Amino acid sequence: MITSSANQAIRQLRALRQRKQREASGLCFVEGIRQVAEAIRSGAELVQLIVAPELLTSPFAHALLAEQAAAGTARLELSRDLFERLSQKDGPQGLAAVVRQRWAALADVQLTTAPGWVALLEPADPGNLGTIIRTADAVGASGLFLLGPSADPYDPAALRASMGATFGMPLVRCAWEEFAAWQAASGAPLVGTSDQAPADFQAVRYPQPLVLLMGSERQGLTPAQLASCQHVVAIPMRGHADSLNLAVATGVLLYELLRQARGGQVIHR
Amino acid sequence: MITSSANQAIRQLRALRQRKQREASGLCFVEGIRQVAEAIRSGAELVQLIVAPELLTSPFAHALLAEQAAAGTARLELSRDLFERLSQKDGPQGLAAVVRQRWAALADVQLTTAPGWVALLEPADPGNLGTIIRTADAVGASGLFLLGPSADPYDPAALRASMGATFGMPLVRCAWEEFAAWQAASGAPLVGTSDQAPADFQAVRYPQPLVLLMGSERQGLTPAQLASCQHVVAIPMRGHADSLNLAVATGVLLYELLRQARGGQVIHR
Repeated sequence: MITSSANQAIRQLRALRQRKQREASGLCFVEGIRQVAEAIRSGAELVQLIVAPELLTSPFAHALLAEQAAAGTARLELSRDLFERLSQKDGPQGLAAVVRQRWAALADVQLTTAPGWVALLEPADPGNLGTIIRTADAVGASGLFLLGPSADPYDPAALRASMGATFGMPLVRCAWEEFAAWQAASGAPLVGTSDQAPADFQAVRYPQPLVLLMGSERQGLTPAQLASCQHVVAIPMRGHADSLNLAVATGVLLYELLRQARGGQVIHR
Repeated sequence: MITSSANQAIRQLRALRQRKQREASGLCFVEGIRQVAEAIRSGAELVQLIVAPELLTSPFAHALLAEQAAAGTARLELSRDLFERLSQKDGPQGLAAVVRQRWAALADVQLTTAPGWVALLEPADPGNLGTIIRTADAVGASGLFLLGPSADPYDPAALRASMGATFGMPLVRCAWEEFAAWQAASGAPLVGTSDQAPADFQAVRYPQPLVLLMGSERQGLTPAQLASCQHVVAIPMRGHADSLNLAVATGVLLYELLRQARGGQVIHR
């Protein structure tokens, strides 16, 4: 059992807090029983389990460890104190894992099932990104495009916010130009949002499956991006603010798509 | 101009990061041009403006300062370095304010306009709380109940997430029991959410105005709380997760209320 934070293995785990190290290794650090279990359920590759036996009391977690031991997954045991110092969670549960990142290729994207895919342009906040992955999972979306410089879905804050959904959600990262070329070639219906759009999002009948294109927290879509969209819609704002939080806006739109996919009619404006 | 972080006024500003100090003083620290402007627009009481002239280049902000000078608002000038150390924002803009907190009284609550009020049971995350206030503003909700031990809407993270909506939104804090007594006496329609509910949230015709009751991030509503509700609805979950982020769930429900208030029909399940 490792008790020293100067240990080489611990330093490598801590290094995974930095995006640069995550990118270089293609790995990430997943913490908590639920998240580790979700990663396993999604078929993610576990490189190593990190266990603090003094903290880990859940029978479910012990069953999970037994299965992983049988499968030959490497295991690192830490003292309670060391695990708590490594942890970024309130109430560390004593279970974490080093997991290999997964990225899907643009060439493999299929748009076959409603509601379709979500495309995020340069999302900046890892918490928002994780929350959107969680919501995309909830509505049965097929995957996410991350266009341009994007927050890292394998950031610990993003993984926490996704509640384990990240490993089951195909993620494609590419430049806007690559995405636009794919979209033009595939003919995938693209729906964008803009607070300036005349069309109300609850008054538009959407083609499904589609790609829902969301601007970043700070900037709307450019005129060229808007021009690529089959529909551009606005979410009505009845108060003083001119926009919603990005994850809330994405959720509101995705549930409107789900409602229409279930036979719901649009309102008349 | 103050340049030392040991200055008594600076220590008092820094103390407002702590909830205990905010509660004791009834004040909060609002940072950024937009947020300060929103507080002023909402009629909030500015106790003091904090200005770093070296950082503050916006003509809009200078016009705001001139107005506040004419109104006699106290003003504290800080060096750029000191303001940056005090700031909790990326890219400090050189403007902040000490603002008096506002709380509405349960006895003054009126339920007269759709969609109505939002009631949050023990919300724990200040970011979620601020995001919900922002969304409540966006749909034209009348106010928020914070029931039981709640995150602080005047926490800097909550204020940031609310994008200035907090000062315009009536906020009532009370125990569940007080709220339940008010609800029983007023006959206000209460709609709750539960992932176990048989009713689909897009298949229920809501009475409006109503009070939308949301459980906390960690716990659903208790049986007694559910029994107080006229409807209990579930948001369909098509993936592996069993819930949405609290702010996303609240947003999705509020926009369904807005849709119905605009003549939208329910789906048939």
